[in-house]
Amino acid sequence: MHLRKTRRKTGEWASALVATKKGQKPRVVVLGTGWAACRLLKDLNTDVYDVVCISPRNHMVFTPLLASTCVGTLEFRSVSEPVRSIQPALSRSPDSYYFHAYCTSIDPMNHAVYCEALDDEGVTEGNWKFKVCYDKLVIASGAEPSTFGIKGVNEYATFLREVPHARDIRRRLLLNLMLSDIPGVPIEEKERLLHCVVVGGGPTGVEFSGELSDFIRRDVHEKYSHVKEYVHVTLIEANEILSSFDVRLRQYAVNHLSKSGVKLLRGVVKEVFADRLILNDGSTVPYGVLVWSTGVGPSNFVKKLEFEKSPGGRIGVDEYMRVPQFEDVYAIGDCAGYLKSTGKPILPALAQVAERQGKYLGAALNSLALAGGGRAGAAKTTKLGEPFVYRHLGSMASVGRYKALVDLRENKDAKGLSWAGILSWLVWRSAYLTRVVSWRNRFYVAVNWATTFVFGRDISRF
Amino acid sequence: MHLRKTRRKTGEWASALVATKKGQKPRVVVLGTGWAACRLLKDLNTDVYDVVCISPRNHMVFTPLLASTCVGTLEFRSVSEPVRSIQPALSRSPDSYYFHAYCTSIDPMNHAVYCEALDDEGVTEGNWKFKVCYDKLVIASGAEPSTFGIKGVNEYATFLREVPHARDIRRRLLLNLMLSDIPGVPIEEKERLLHCVVVGGGPTGVEFSGELSDFIRRDVHEKYSHVKEYVHVTLIEANEILSSFDVRLRQYAVNHLSKSGVKLLRGVVKEVFADRLILNDGSTVPYGVLVWSTGVGPSNFVKKLEFEKSPGGRIGVDEYMRVPQFEDVYAIGDCAGYLKSTGKPILPALAQVAERQGKYLGAALNSLALAGGGRAGAAKTTKLGEPFVYRHLGSMASVGRYKALVDLRENKDAKGLSWAGILSWLVWRSAYLTRVVSWRNRFYVAVNWATTFVFGRDISRF
Repeated sequence: MHLRKTRRKTGEWASALVATKKGQKPRVVVLGTGWAACRLLKDLNTDVYDVVCISPRNHMVFTPLLASTCVGTLEFRSVSEPVRSIQPALSRSPDSYYFHAYCTSIDPMNHAVYCEALDDEGVTEGNWKFKVCYDKLVIASGAEPSTFGIKGVNEYATFLREVPHARDIRRRLLLNLMLSDIPGVPIEEKERLLHCVVVGGGPTGVEFSGELSDFIRRDVHEKYSHVKEYVHVTLIEANEILSSFDVRLRQYAVNHLSKSGVKLLRGVVKEVFADRLILNDGSTVPYGVLVWSTGVGPSNFVKKLEFEKSPGGRIGVDEYMRVPQFEDVYAIGDCAGYLKSTGKPILPALAQVAERQGKYLGAALNSLALAGGGRAGAAKTTKLGEPFVYRHLGSMASVGRYKALVDLRENKDAKGLSWAGILSWLVWRSAYLTRVVSWRNRFYVAVNWATTFVFGRDISRF
Repeated sequence: MHLRKTRRKTGEWASALVATKKGQKPRVVVLGTGWAACRLLKDLNTDVYDVVCISPRNHMVFTPLLASTCVGTLEFRSVSEPVRSIQPALSRSPDSYYFHAYCTSIDPMNHAVYCEALDDEGVTEGNWKFKVCYDKLVIASGAEPSTFGIKGVNEYATFLREVPHARDIRRRLLLNLMLSDIPGVPIEEKERLLHCVVVGGGPTGVEFSGELSDFIRRDVHEKYSHVKEYVHVTLIEANEILSSFDVRLRQYAVNHLSKSGVKLLRGVVKEVFADRLILNDGSTVPYGVLVWSTGVGPSNFVKKLEFEKSPGGRIGVDEYMRVPQFEDVYAIGDCAGYLKSTGKPILPALAQVAERQGKYLGAALNSLALAGGGRAGAAKTTKLGEPFVYRHLGSMASVGRYKALVDLRENKDAKGLSWAGILSWLVWRSAYLTRVVSWRNRFYVAVNWATTFVFGRDISRF
């Protein structure tokens, strides 16, 4: 990618969307394009609100299917949905906007956010700074992967949260398969290049391990037969894999992964180097591909905010998803957590929770506007509806080879239905297929699955 | 993308595929994975030959449809085909290989090529160098875009020959659409950001301009309605657009493009800067996206080879596609040209020519092996078949909005059929659909076209 720079100076265009006036619709500013933000955007009533979405990513990622794109089972575009399609007013309404930008700070006393346009290709010199005034602000900027301060993780491991992550993993895997075929590469180096290590035994780590072992069994054995015996997958977890699932399902997953050739390793990573990692017990694990999926924690943006925090460092909210310190500020999704004063436990960082909160807040803001409380400062006098209540609908995870787990218990200790096997895998596929946001992507996901089944996975690398 | 470096030293694994011995199959080494190389690879009889393909690109690109991927009409994977699928022996046969590498030099006296493994992600320190001995060598390494020594082209323009080029164009176009929507950007800067300039009025330049104007008319108007009036396309050509086509078709294309809003500019580019280009008449053209498609010339690899050259600097071949100076060396596709001594004109750098030469040489090498001339040095005593004869089957180009040109004349001055319009566009689509190499990609191209028609183009950017 060439850097193209113009001769503009930093901040020359510093400009603003000023506060809305009487006769205009009140403006909801949404930070983020994840599950919470996109569900909210979809549900907001654009007859009563103008909407401004600010995010460095112009699309939502259907995260539960991201692991499948790393090995080519699904295409990248099939799991991403442009935010302009999710909320068409962003494109069509004259006063609604999507801004490809970071929010750098919030001024809740003056109902404004400060932003910098994102320019990852150097189209401009410096950044374009601008200010956006809001009537309602919804912070849904998400979380960041936890590295627990372990040295080398940020430099050498790949996370699995965005499309470019999946693309990096795919490119590296295909590159290493090709490199290990070069004449004269010693066996131990082939084994290192083709050792895929996944750290973190949650659903993402398990699904990625399962997809990898499918890819190896079917596509690598057929298309890289010279090096097939050197490919291995290891899943490292400090405690138990899939700890939130029913114990019988956990056992099923362990047996199934082992049978598929995934090595399960109990251990804690101490340090990561470019070609190997060191465990707490001192042992060395050489790797060619390293995927890090040990959960998420507060982002730097959230850490910097001078808002009251929940236990765990998220933005503290009350039961109505309000930031109680400031008028007209809400937070939902992985960046938000109940304040200690609510007496409620922090909800897990799940797509399911985020989406439900987006839905709840969308409806609440719509009623607020219809009751005359849409404008900045007007919500004080308006009666609020019911508080947000989360009911867990169950968990699912695929483990590869047309097998999946479905756990429909409300929580870890409750009784309820749980299955594992091919039927669960069908439930898993159909559940995701109906939840993919647009008909276009539903169609593409189905087409991708069908062609992978018939033709195998694509191995072009570009 | 992180750089991961190992601690290996340069050249530590310097190694070789040594010359084949009695009892082994003779080895054909093919440099390249373009039209010529892939057709040859597909047709080679792997019962009589082992095949080694060396190329920095592990897939073929279906170049005539590449322009459509820049705006999302087609997906990148639909127009690329892994070389391991084109010739399955590369994966399955124990002595056939695909090497992801550059050929750095050829030693025709000793029947060997020298290579360096490609490691664009810094997996290794230094390069992995290796040597491959051949019985037959086919050079099909293609050509490089011509820049005519114009300053700034390599730095600032994007070519349109590979998938990463198309991806760069797409990313830049979507970025500029988003940047121009940021509050406070002055109108002249919006117009610059959204000015797409195409230099070169051959089929690629015309098809890309047509696709762009389709994208603007349909998708930009719907999804970027705030900035739609600032988007413009200019096609710069020094002479006539589509100069190889029938004069009536050229006139049709000119009228059609003008009606679609593409500005046609007669001019010669003098110098290119990051945000504008200067024409020979001194005028300045500001741009946001610049695509350069003015044809191709000899690559640096071909320039460096101490082989006798054809007029125009290609590798000189006789009528059997042999490099007559050296035994067992052949050249086909854009890198090869008839020696002056053959009295034949240089063939144009077209997919059609390259593919036909690959087919011809594949059949010739297969007969040679069956006649006992497969091994190095054994071809001297074997009778050769017919020389290669090229018969032009006609040219096609789409011009956007379901219109295309089809010119079935054998050459510029011959009489024959030529049409323009919707019927031609259907011919154009079906011709390409049947020529796409695999059923998988035929299916995907058809699915992409259908979804673009129904849902419009995807605008996610990652």
